[in-house]
Amino acid sequence: MSFQYLRITKPSEYVAHVELNRPDKLNAFIPALWVELGLAFKQLSTDSDVRAIVLSGAGDRAFTAGLDVVSAAEWMGEMANLPDVARRTVYMRRHILGMQDSLTAIEKCEKPVICVLHGVSLGMAIDVACCADVRICSSDTRFAVKEVDIGLAADLGSLARLPHIVASQSWVAEVSLTARDFLAPEAQAVGFVSRVLPNKAAALAYGLDMAALIASKSPVAVQGTKELLNHGRDHTVEDTLKYTAVWNASAIQCDDVQAALMSGMQKTKPHFTKL
Amino acid sequence: MSFQYLRITKPSEYVAHVELNRPDKLNAFIPALWVELGLAFKQLSTDSDVRAIVLSGAGDRAFTAGLDVVSAAEWMGEMANLPDVARRTVYMRRHILGMQDSLTAIEKCEKPVICVLHGVSLGMAIDVACCADVRICSSDTRFAVKEVDIGLAADLGSLARLPHIVASQSWVAEVSLTARDFLAPEAQAVGFVSRVLPNKAAALAYGLDMAALIASKSPVAVQGTKELLNHGRDHTVEDTLKYTAVWNASAIQCDDVQAALMSGMQKTKPHFTKL
Amino acid sequence: MSFQYLRITKPSEYVAHVELNRPDKLNAFIPALWVELGLAFKQLSTDSDVRAIVLSGAGDRAFTAGLDVVSAAEWMGEMANLPDVARRTVYMRRHILGMQDSLTAIEKCEKPVICVLHGVSLGMAIDVACCADVRICSSDTRFAVKEVDIGLAADLGSLARLPHIVASQSWVAEVSLTARDFLAPEAQAVGFVSRVLPNKAAALAYGLDMAALIASKSPVAVQGTKELLNHGRDHTVEDTLKYTAVWNASAIQCDDVQAALMSGMQKTKPHFTKL
Amino acid sequence: MSFQYLRITKPSEYVAHVELNRPDKLNAFIPALWVELGLAFKQLSTDSDVRAIVLSGAGDRAFTAGLDVVSAAEWMGEMANLPDVARRTVYMRRHILGMQDSLTAIEKCEKPVICVLHGVSLGMAIDVACCADVRICSSDTRFAVKEVDIGLAADLGSLARLPHIVASQSWVAEVSLTARDFLAPEAQAVGFVSRVLPNKAAALAYGLDMAALIASKSPVAVQGTKELLNHGRDHTVEDTLKYTAVWNASAIQCDDVQAALMSGMQKTKPHFTKL
Amino acid sequence: MSFQYLRITKPSEYVAHVELNRPDKLNAFIPALWVELGLAFKQLSTDSDVRAIVLSGAGDRAFTAGLDVVSAAEWMGEMANLPDVARRTVYMRRHILGMQDSLTAIEKCEKPVICVLHGVSLGMAIDVACCADVRICSSDTRFAVKEVDIGLAADLGSLARLPHIVASQSWVAEVSLTARDFLAPEAQAVGFVSRVLPNKAAALAYGLDMAALIASKSPVAVQGTKELLNHGRDHTVEDTLKYTAVWNASAIQCDDVQAALMSGMQKTKPHFTKL
Amino acid sequence: MSFQYLRITKPSEYVAHVELNRPDKLNAFIPALWVELGLAFKQLSTDSDVRAIVLSGAGDRAFTAGLDVVSAAEWMGEMANLPDVARRTVYMRRHILGMQDSLTAIEKCEKPVICVLHGVSLGMAIDVACCADVRICSSDTRFAVKEVDIGLAADLGSLARLPHIVASQSWVAEVSLTARDFLAPEAQAVGFVSRVLPNKAAALAYGLDMAALIASKSPVAVQGTKELLNHGRDHTVEDTLKYTAVWNASAIQCDDVQAALMSGMQKTKPHFTKL
Repeated sequence: MSFQYLRITKPSEYVAHVELNRPDKLNAFIPALWVELGLAFKQLSTDSDVRAIVLSGAGDRAFTAGLDVVSAAEWMGEMANLPDVARRTVYMRRHILGMQDSLTAIEKCEKPVICVLHGVSLGMAIDVACCADVRICSSDTRFAVKEVDIGLAADLGSLARLPHIVASQSWVAEVSLTARDFLAPEAQAVGFVSRVLPNKAAALAYGLDMAALIASKSPVAVQGTKELLNHGRDHTVEDTLKYTAVWNASAIQCDDVQAALMSGMQKTKPHFTKL
Repeated sequence: MSFQYLRITKPSEYVAHVELNRPDKLNAFIPALWVELGLAFKQLSTDSDVRAIVLSGAGDRAFTAGLDVVSAAEWMGEMANLPDVARRTVYMRRHILGMQDSLTAIEKCEKPVICVLHGVSLGMAIDVACCADVRICSSDTRFAVKEVDIGLAADLGSLARLPHIVASQSWVAEVSLTARDFLAPEAQAVGFVSRVLPNKAAALAYGLDMAALIASKSPVAVQGTKELLNHGRDHTVEDTLKYTAVWNASAIQCDDVQAALMSGMQKTKPHFTKL
Repeated sequence: MSFQYLRITKPSEYVAHVELNRPDKLNAFIPALWVELGLAFKQLSTDSDVRAIVLSGAGDRAFTAGLDVVSAAEWMGEMANLPDVARRTVYMRRHILGMQDSLTAIEKCEKPVICVLHGVSLGMAIDVACCADVRICSSDTRFAVKEVDIGLAADLGSLARLPHIVASQSWVAEVSLTARDFLAPEAQAVGFVSRVLPNKAAALAYGLDMAALIASKSPVAVQGTKELLNHGRDHTVEDTLKYTAVWNASAIQCDDVQAALMSGMQKTKPHFTKL
Repeated sequence: MSFQYLRITKPSEYVAHVELNRPDKLNAFIPALWVELGLAFKQLSTDSDVRAIVLSGAGDRAFTAGLDVVSAAEWMGEMANLPDVARRTVYMRRHILGMQDSLTAIEKCEKPVICVLHGVSLGMAIDVACCADVRICSSDTRFAVKEVDIGLAADLGSLARLPHIVASQSWVAEVSLTARDFLAPEAQAVGFVSRVLPNKAAALAYGLDMAALIASKSPVAVQGTKELLNHGRDHTVEDTLKYTAVWNASAIQCDDVQAALMSGMQKTKPHFTKL
Repeated sequence: MSFQYLRITKPSEYVAHVELNRPDKLNAFIPALWVELGLAFKQLSTDSDVRAIVLSGAGDRAFTAGLDVVSAAEWMGEMANLPDVARRTVYMRRHILGMQDSLTAIEKCEKPVICVLHGVSLGMAIDVACCADVRICSSDTRFAVKEVDIGLAADLGSLARLPHIVASQSWVAEVSLTARDFLAPEAQAVGFVSRVLPNKAAALAYGLDMAALIASKSPVAVQGTKELLNHGRDHTVEDTLKYTAVWNASAIQCDDVQAALMSGMQKTKPHFTKL
Repeated sequence: MSFQYLRITKPSEYVAHVELNRPDKLNAFIPALWVELGLAFKQLSTDSDVRAIVLSGAGDRAFTAGLDVVSAAEWMGEMANLPDVARRTVYMRRHILGMQDSLTAIEKCEKPVICVLHGVSLGMAIDVACCADVRICSSDTRFAVKEVDIGLAADLGSLARLPHIVASQSWVAEVSLTARDFLAPEAQAVGFVSRVLPNKAAALAYGLDMAALIASKSPVAVQGTKELLNHGRDHTVEDTLKYTAVWNASAIQCDDVQAALMSGMQKTKPHFTKL
């Protein structure tokens, strides 16, 4: 599959690097971009040559400036032409659900995703980053849950996911209701990112190293870990324990356990079959 | 509506200020106070002249010292006169549910609520503050989940809401089981409050400014944001995404989006119709 | 009941101290150890002479090094001898559910449990610690969610419980996917432990003091608090409020409320009947 | 409290009879009627002179013909005057939630409610009847989930509650999507009503007898039974068992158990204290 | 879109008829068939020329005989070639999830689906039929939850959906555990089908008439009804009421309400804009 | 294990028959009986010589008359001696949870359970029968949800499970609130039992035949079916589909599929390895 607004590379064994690639527009989101993003992660999900993924933005200035308002005016206009409120609502509901599905593909991707943020990271930047497993950023990152400033509640996942991701609900409410900027140290203090690096290059390097480390582990173990963490967020502990028991009762019969134990004792690098 | 134990003022456009107003008793809670509190927030919820609310305590010494034990002895006595355990239990269950409903009115209020704590803030102070969207405090605030020290598990929401609000469950268990005091810096470190100001006046000023900022935004966007954050706490991410899509498919058809975008480009203050 | 791999003592009134007691093997888990652990906490749960419990590891070097791999090879071999995949899966599912149940007994124990970690605290150490109410550690503690390094997703509760316990999901994903070590200050920063003490002796002393403090409170209040915090983790706020109202409507009729209020006014130590 | 559109009588000891009382308009629902209905059931809920309630429609022709369309045109017009879609949506959402709350008061009423249907029973008739605990009807009853025929999905509870109440989801979908009439025998066959009587008088007599029978039992037992059945509909079996254990652990300490056992042995009519 | 194993026609205005079209193989399911089925219903879901759908099987002998075992042997063989249990499990899990998704497309299709069964209707026939809104059959239909007879628990939805669809859980367990046949009258008695017609032609005619009736109603009302019934199955009543209020607050602003009311008064056939 | 109040036999290969065996007391429940019942089903759950279980009552007169009131008076007295309401409530809560656990062991037993009722089947008879997978009865069975008549809401599962098991919630409410008797035909009409046989001997023979039929099927398939039906009752359809996919992805790799297909083609009796 080839993409117009994404660049996908393979910087090291079993690691994929996905870049939002509209740098002249600060990687702002047009429909083609989010559709490609969804397709890319659906494909990577079952690509047995990939075990960990880094997601970042092309260019020096922005991870992404969020929704492209010029483009948005177009489909808002299309909606406005519909005959009545109910039909416009149906149009918009399908549209929002479609956008949500594209972003949720990152979360549902069977392989872990490390999101590297830098520079301008507003609005949809937060929605997208919330779908990743790990978030790190450069020290120049400027974040905002920006939607209130365009007259809207954030509808692509920030309000649904952010409260599960960080420490303080008082902080979540404050940044969501005021749309104020927050910077890298504040993002780290509340746990939104787990590390701040001096600049984009350093952040990307750190992210790629972490991806390479994860990719060197058993893919059965790594993908099971992502699945079970995801399951846990939306179920009771008891439910997740039960689901885990069924999951691992089968996974434990793989060759990776033996390979991992062996290499642990022999201090060698284990080899794991593709998955 | 006029209140005996609350003072409600309008310090700036679209901002309401609610004060617990029994300062000679450290704003301790008697039935009339919590009933008035519930009624006030139910009324403010649909008052189109209000877009953000600050909740604080009158006087210099306390946000609130919690339940008024003299008053509590009265209704405990009323209960004790009932003929058997089941009838006393029914009486108390209705009583507790009534108190919970009064406090939950703060959470259900369609407008955001900023709780400003200072001085003595014990027992019901925590229950009440947990119902607000944002919490800030002055540096002299003394907090405690105090109920264990009167032989009871906290039943007005602290145990139900606190774990969702802050970072560390180990900390929640510790302060709930020991009833020990904690001070402003600790409250901020765990994320219970999102800011500490030097004194009550500064905290109140900060809270009123934040309320004014929120009140200057689109009420459609702000009230939607509160609703969706509340929904997210008690549902799966998938459920909240779906609810969000239905919610915003209609909300996006309001005039506020256009007004917000316009004023953003023209650097003017947008005007939003009442809601 | 007497135990081979646990030591249970009564260091002060109403306080029990449970030690994992295989120090020569770094308290690594063999089946007999987790079975005893489950039985001990089921028994302590209704022992009216116990009001708070401290859980720690014997010896200087480790809280626990996790699963004993020599012992694990045995039951893995037993499984491998079964005739087909489905039968091996059933065997393993029952095995995992059994291990989970043993650890969950700590969480279900009606009395609060303070886990004191020190030294090597890997793999099952995290699963076990996540079942306690409060976690503290010594400054030499070395933690890791280690399972990925043996080719497995953690299946005894770390992935199900850790995200509910700490602040940052980005951090949870990182340590779970990389299996990297983390030390005491990092554990405190994310809220996994609520205090770090200089060494094991100091940590244990601190834990025993906290247990004694909790044991001096009304057992009706303390045990209700644990139950309601546990309930809240896996239910909506509304559900927990309702459950709380039914719970406390009866609990409030106990003698402890009067005893606690009296001793509060008279500055005496209250006496509470056994529970 | 006195009502304009309801008639409330006390046909026998501890039994209340509530009648929709706009017979000249086939008991069609105007705002005042549903508001009164909600208030009445909230009041009856804690009236210790009432232990069972019968709900029926005044006049010979209808339980209720559903929403009064003349009246509806008024508040639909009020909505239409609002400035934009979002504000009209907020208006309507509050309106619908208000109607739902009025009807849900029947379900939340602590005393059992027996709904007796006869004649025209369309649209809101189903919404209302679904909130009762028991439904019986006369043989001339004509039912329909009528909303689709006025361009709407039923929004006052029929679609939410009907599937939980009857046997066949294929049947529920059919009558909800086609808005076709169904008669008493079909209503009984699918389990919507549990009995069909020859005419309104017989149905009412049967309902009042059942109410008198229920009112002769222990109110602790009866009200607990309603609460636990309601709880079970919306929770897992495990949750309901746990809630039940807490509920009954207190309820079992009442005097009614002794009174019931005694009267059972002595073949006398037990006396139960008010609740 | 054109299909190899499906036939899709438009027998009347706004009605689509989808036929499983492998009659020489008793419409047994091969991968291409379920993939096409999923695609077809995803497409029909937003096709504004379709307002109701009938699903049936081509030929005289069978709705469908279920899974094609010859074809199944192929992908079972593919799985068997994978290197270890965990990798075979991942392969099968993705395979089963893919099959489930194809069938679930029927349930998620925004338009109501009437399933007409006849003749042999085994195994996957039940899984498929459970995804429809309404089920009817001819008197010669022979049903079975057949999977136990091929050594498997049914995994495409019968065990998940059947208990929600019919009356008696004792019956569900019996037919699922014994894999015994059941005939049309029994299917109707338990509520699995809502009508039995003498033969396939009559059943199909009845289904098409019902579809035409539904297609003549407001599509806003009909599609809202399906959505809300689906929502109700998997949520609490309270959740569904809230979701319903948001949904209808917008839907009620459509032109269909006026059109429906008008035509009702004027006894004319209403015209509804496409949706 | 040997039992005093149960008789356990092996009437045919892989079939166990459990009888409540206190016929002179109409199999009324004393603590020893429910404890034994729980232990027996926990043991049978993993006994690889058992694939299906029939549960019935010894003697001609009763499945069970319910709770033994003489015995109940004893532990009620023990409770009454405790010092205050909270301590009595804790005692009773543990007691009720213990009784619930004993009965729930029937539901959690990995093997299907067919409950055969006859004669007097009151109170706990319903609680117990609701835990079985299939219920059949003789024509002389007299049922009642009897608890209200002894001043209590049913707390051992009838109120939690019955609404999920039968067709009409109106009927459930009626029999639970009035405590009236219902006979075999009514029990079958609402779906509580799936078959009525002329007398106890015929019912038992029918139950044992059904058990033998189930025991002749693949135990992997049968036990998976029970597990997935149980899971479905308490989860959303989507959750159950996902759990099913993980479950079957492993189960499908067993030898039973091949054995079942072969014997199906060769018309021979398949042999399945123990489980």
